[in-house]
Amino acid sequence: MLLNNKLFENLVNAFRKLPGVGKKTAERYALHLLSSTEEEVKEFVGTISGVRSQIKRCSECHDFSETDPCSICVSTERDGGLLCIVEKPSGVIAIERSGAFRGKYYVLNGLVSPLDGIGPEELGLSHLFHKVVTKGVKELIIATSATSEGEATALYIAHQLKPLGIKVTRIAHGVPMGAGLELTDDYTLRQALEGRKVLD
Amino acid sequence: MLLNNKLFENLVNAFRKLPGVGKKTAERYALHLLSSTEEEVKEFVGTISGVRSQIKRCSECHDFSETDPCSICVSTERDGGLLCIVEKPSGVIAIERSGAFRGKYYVLNGLVSPLDGIGPEELGLSHLFHKVVTKGVKELIIATSATSEGEATALYIAHQLKPLGIKVTRIAHGVPMGAGLELTDDYTLRQALEGRKVLD
Repeated sequence: MLLNNKLFENLVNAFRKLPGVGKKTAERYALHLLSSTEEEVKEFVGTISGVRSQIKRCSECHDFSETDPCSICVSTERDGGLLCIVEKPSGVIAIERSGAFRGKYYVLNGLVSPLDGIGPEELGLSHLFHKVVTKGVKELIIATSATSEGEATALYIAHQLKPLGIKVTRIAHGVPMGAGLELTDDYTLRQALEGRKVLD
Repeated sequence: MLLNNKLFENLVNAFRKLPGVGKKTAERYALHLLSSTEEEVKEFVGTISGVRSQIKRCSECHDFSETDPCSICVSTERDGGLLCIVEKPSGVIAIERSGAFRGKYYVLNGLVSPLDGIGPEELGLSHLFHKVVTKGVKELIIATSATSEGEATALYIAHQLKPLGIKVTRIAHGVPMGAGLELTDDYTLRQALEGRKVLD
């Protein structure tokens, strides 16, 4: 019986460290793993260890990459004058998947959050500003999330770079495609109305 | 950039093997793991490998256990005349957590499912019947889930054991405690009405 079993509890707690995983889900994962063959568990564990040691950070854009600099940073087919700022590597994946962007990226790996003691220095924004100035970036597209920290970070970056004559833009916020108004929250609707465009 | 990266895809696919994990969730887990320190990943991997090699099956009740037979099977404080049949080890955890049962368990590790080619032999039900007859079980409580396979398995076991004079019962089905009627499905409500009890 696994209830109150120390080893099983360790396994459940290991899974609970994954984002969004509560006790019930962690238990399901742990039970699934115990039901798997030794071979399957060995493969699972091998994949995790292998990937973690082979994927590093690109020193240019701070995204995850097998190579340093990463393939986007060295690409000559990408417009280096367009730099998209995202909070996390998942942002790069999402935008790349959309296929709507052919510039380069910069991953903040965090957001300005004074309450958590994360200021511009902790985020290493001077590295970003240095890059923007020296690499001839013409437009900075800020794609941080639409939270208060995401907005604060966007505003801070804009304030610092606008005096240098660099165009700073923010991705549009509004009603998601395919969504009805009745399911859209007030704040998003307000943003959608403010950001309205002329149809021609 | 991780989109279309082979190593990252392997990691995502490894997480997708966990129950109920789709592509988006697997990606979140993979990104979380890449963001963790080498130390944390080593600990995660170590916990998984360690637990998998130390937790086996109890040869008596087929539940997971560090010892064989497990602590419940050898316990003298448990009523060996009461045997609760569950589908999976998670059933034992759930019932133990409720604190409402002081008998012993038997884990089927499956259900009779003719469409999937799982008959009574594949489930090893003869081992269960042998145990019931030789260990002096007086009541068999069938706690398989309320699905068609769960019901079929319960009926099959009851059919086999009733002629031997063994009391076979099924856990009650009905409206969950704390749930309103408007959120209860038709089938459950029908079961709840059929299983109604006299209040005194």
